[in-house]
Amino acid sequence: MKKSPKFSGTICPAITPFNSKNSVDFAAMEKHYQMLTEAKINGILVMGTIGEFATLSIKERLAIIKQAHQFTDLPLIVNVSTTVVDDMIRLADASYDAGYPAVMALPHYYLSQTTNQLYEYYKYLDSRFLGDWFVYNFPARTGCDVDAKLVAKLMLDCPRFIGIKDTIDCASHTRSIVLASQSIRKDFSVFAGFDEYFIPNLLNGGAGVLSGLNNVVPDLFASVMKAFNENDFHQIQLLQKEISRLSNIYNIGDDFVTTIKTAVAEKHGYLKANSRNYGGALNAKQIDEVKQLFKL
Amino acid sequence: MKKSPKFSGTICPAITPFNSKNSVDFAAMEKHYQMLTEAKINGILVMGTIGEFATLSIKERLAIIKQAHQFTDLPLIVNVSTTVVDDMIRLADASYDAGYPAVMALPHYYLSQTTNQLYEYYKYLDSRFLGDWFVYNFPARTGCDVDAKLVAKLMLDCPRFIGIKDTIDCASHTRSIVLASQSIRKDFSVFAGFDEYFIPNLLNGGAGVLSGLNNVVPDLFASVMKAFNENDFHQIQLLQKEISRLSNIYNIGDDFVTTIKTAVAEKHGYLKANSRNYGGALNAKQIDEVKQLFKL
Amino acid sequence: MKKSPKFSGTICPAITPFNSKNSVDFAAMEKHYQMLTEAKINGILVMGTIGEFATLSIKERLAIIKQAHQFTDLPLIVNVSTTVVDDMIRLADASYDAGYPAVMALPHYYLSQTTNQLYEYYKYLDSRFLGDWFVYNFPARTGCDVDAKLVAKLMLDCPRFIGIKDTIDCASHTRSIVLASQSIRKDFSVFAGFDEYFIPNLLNGGAGVLSGLNNVVPDLFASVMKAFNENDFHQIQLLQKEISRLSNIYNIGDDFVTTIKTAVAEKHGYLKANSRNYGGALNAKQIDEVKQLFKL
Amino acid sequence: MKKSPKFSGTICPAITPFNSKNSVDFAAMEKHYQMLTEAKINGILVMGTIGEFATLSIKERLAIIKQAHQFTDLPLIVNVSTTVVDDMIRLADASYDAGYPAVMALPHYYLSQTTNQLYEYYKYLDSRFLGDWFVYNFPARTGCDVDAKLVAKLMLDCPRFIGIKDTIDCASHTRSIVLASQSIRKDFSVFAGFDEYFIPNLLNGGAGVLSGLNNVVPDLFASVMKAFNENDFHQIQLLQKEISRLSNIYNIGDDFVTTIKTAVAEKHGYLKANSRNYGGALNAKQIDEVKQLFKL
Repeated sequence: MKKSPKFSGTICPAITPFNSKNSVDFAAMEKHYQMLTEAKINGILVMGTIGEFATLSIKERLAIIKQAHQFTDLPLIVNVSTTVVDDMIRLADASYDAGYPAVMALPHYYLSQTTNQLYEYYKYLDSRFLGDWFVYNFPARTGCDVDAKLVAKLMLDCPRFIGIKDTIDCASHTRSIVLASQSIRKDFSVFAGFDEYFIPNLLNGGAGVLSGLNNVVPDLFASVMKAFNENDFHQIQLLQKEISRLSNIYNIGDDFVTTIKTAVAEKHGYLKANSRNYGGALNAKQIDEVKQLFKL
Repeated sequence: MKKSPKFSGTICPAITPFNSKNSVDFAAMEKHYQMLTEAKINGILVMGTIGEFATLSIKERLAIIKQAHQFTDLPLIVNVSTTVVDDMIRLADASYDAGYPAVMALPHYYLSQTTNQLYEYYKYLDSRFLGDWFVYNFPARTGCDVDAKLVAKLMLDCPRFIGIKDTIDCASHTRSIVLASQSIRKDFSVFAGFDEYFIPNLLNGGAGVLSGLNNVVPDLFASVMKAFNENDFHQIQLLQKEISRLSNIYNIGDDFVTTIKTAVAEKHGYLKANSRNYGGALNAKQIDEVKQLFKL
Repeated sequence: MKKSPKFSGTICPAITPFNSKNSVDFAAMEKHYQMLTEAKINGILVMGTIGEFATLSIKERLAIIKQAHQFTDLPLIVNVSTTVVDDMIRLADASYDAGYPAVMALPHYYLSQTTNQLYEYYKYLDSRFLGDWFVYNFPARTGCDVDAKLVAKLMLDCPRFIGIKDTIDCASHTRSIVLASQSIRKDFSVFAGFDEYFIPNLLNGGAGVLSGLNNVVPDLFASVMKAFNENDFHQIQLLQKEISRLSNIYNIGDDFVTTIKTAVAEKHGYLKANSRNYGGALNAKQIDEVKQLFKL
Repeated sequence: MKKSPKFSGTICPAITPFNSKNSVDFAAMEKHYQMLTEAKINGILVMGTIGEFATLSIKERLAIIKQAHQFTDLPLIVNVSTTVVDDMIRLADASYDAGYPAVMALPHYYLSQTTNQLYEYYKYLDSRFLGDWFVYNFPARTGCDVDAKLVAKLMLDCPRFIGIKDTIDCASHTRSIVLASQSIRKDFSVFAGFDEYFIPNLLNGGAGVLSGLNNVVPDLFASVMKAFNENDFHQIQLLQKEISRLSNIYNIGDDFVTTIKTAVAEKHGYLKANSRNYGGALNAKQIDEVKQLFKL
């Protein structure tokens, strides 16, 4: 796996399959990564929110770092977020050592940091990370926000800060980051974090999307990039409508991770739908809704 | 003015000009409506939020209803929202009498209504309105939300409920309403309420936009409709970037209404920037930012 | 009615009774004011939120101002809030003319003002009000907040700004205002806006409470003041538990105004429970819950 | 240390002192625990939010569990919250083994659980915990809420669920839990999580407080219990005012943990103020404010 200077297009925050004992199922993971690779998307985020990083022990995460890059040739990013900074550094070191081109870090997700604290926190991480890194902004989960102004400030100070996943259901937020970053560095990648922001973000000059439905229909997302490159507006319109329609998946069930896993299980068959989030399992009616949505 | 069966495209929530004594300046209003008419946008919302309806007395609103339709041939909608329902009916009656094709009604903006209350409220309004009407959803200002499920329920009950202005910085919200409404009636119009959602909303099958920058650069918004109709993807991309860039106007000053008025005053010259929202006036530096943004 | 220099203790935001045609029922209003007067509370707020000011026309409000002060000898405050400042001034003028010792003004409840705008707005009102006035802070309804710092700033500038009703379910907010105001002027009254904050606010040095249950059980609230003055801690503990228990009323129904009216109707009998908030009426089961709560 | 059947009064969520290399400083911890013990408060929470549990590795937490109970005879609770359930169980097992009478568990603080998920999550924890346990509700940090209804449901299902720390600046929330729990079991303890809710919570029938200022002025909090037991209302009023005044500490600095540590360092001298939350350190002016507040 070679270091890629820049990320763009559609990237899948891959689910982490578990076996019936709720341990990591590496065989299923390999099949999932192969499916994603064949769909020709532009990369994979290892252990993002949908990959249930927050329920994995440090030992499990190190084991996944060791394995995942062997399952694909796609560019990979590893989410190394934990609330213990030394553990983050350990995961980051292991990632860079294994050849991953970049890691990704959330704000501390318990301390509800102020803008000033976020700045100091990321500056410190930058001083410890040995390679390129992304910010993962997900205010609904962390209770704090990495905004356009802070992104700009960090970009000026940290040349290895190469992009952001901006997971927020708010167009002005991601657009502001795109505008702010473009005036500073051209090699910076702003990814939207929700499926339906993919095309709008590309229209704004953003890098692409890093979103959940890539697990189920990666080919759909890959064809967006194709349509864009071919200036096929007719196709763009069809694809946006299809992504909108499929976004209804987020209305099914209590825990969208389990729901996405259910969709993958129903469509692709190589993994179980169980997650580590208690109370997320779908009932028969909900599984039916998932199947109808994806015409299974 | 003829009754139009359906609204779509780009609609301007027109500012209400005030003279130096802070009274309605009808001469400036006429010039503004003429400018908008010449720009070939698709309609005007009379006394929306940007039109400062909430600061106008009932008497002033009746006077504007009497005059505004004489200033343009564009399809017009009148926002009749007040917190006193009988006053709303009075404004609506005056509007239908004068030939306006539709009125628009916010949720009660002090009572913070539940979904059940919103349903009963709109059902009651429907029983009193003599013509077509729109819902105006603006959760940040009303503290309650008209969501996709409620829209669908009201559409089934109220045939004269013909559309919604969904003013919320959240793509999934407007998209859900577009999806829900399409399965019920094809003559329903879902307008996004913020400029930068115009193209994304059209891509989703929404009707268009009803947004503030139409006051300053209506030609820009009119050209979006043209590019869409001509399938000019290159142009769409340029226009989205320009709308994004200009959306920075909302970061200038305390009160975006006064800021928009300042931009109109600086660009078109026929009105004063003063508003009725205390503390909104821009300082010299901010006026300069407005001028730079619009290259004046 | 004489001008009172200072307000303290327990004040009732009186409901506005409507007859079966939903017009103001002055006969019932008189009975309600008499009941409150006999209970020896310390004052009445005319047309507060529970008094449904936001659904009353200017004409109705002027009529109530003309009548209400004749129904009681208690100190009265008139809420003159509307979104049209000239209408507010008209209501305030009528109130001062009729001899009411003070008026009360919300932030503009549609414009979502910034702190700077709130300051300019209240400074302007102060320049137009001819007598003493209160701020009515109710962030959940207005979408903006009058905080301790702004209160302090306005106190320094406006000697006739004599108090605040701080309606927020948050002890630190009201406590901060009490602390900030005490260092500036001793004649300033900080009222909590929810029943269960009465005793805690008194313990902090606040002036008292201006809250809904005073409509139903004014004697309970009057006895709190008595127990405080007599240093009867045993009684204070019993009363706090009773206020807590009765606070469950706010969990019944969609609209607490209609619920409070129902409780008054069931307990005192001289008025109807109907309100102007659509969808608030209680069903039989809910009416039963109200009756059980008040042991009727 | 004996197992205590019930917790009440004032409990200190003890800070975790770090040395200059940011490792746990057990010598300082012992001094802090001794100071708290001498002040005769009613217990200590080991590694709460102020104890920076979220920045401690599992290894560090196990080491603290091993040591802390040797530093005091006070009843102790261990916060075992992590986002990895198996790690929580490991910490809980170690705590029960060492003789701690109870553990405390937050909702998962990244997954933003629904009420249904919270129920399943706590039911699962109950099946794995070998002893008594508390819920730690801190919605501002976890993004989800354990409300009165859920507390009641869990109380019925889980006899070892013996209490809650309800950390929320909202009187109605904690009061609702007190009311709901009292009708189910008398041995349940509802602690307020912020200092200024101590006396109001006792007045409502709650168990007491579990709050930060106990680290600085534990004697003040211990004297509240004394005044209550002696029905000394005069003293209660003085103490409430003093707690209110000192609550201003939460307005100093970006990170209240570091601020509390600074106050302890300045007042008691046996530890350093440094924390693991980047950007929280106070400047000279802020340190002065802390000193003035505590008259140092």
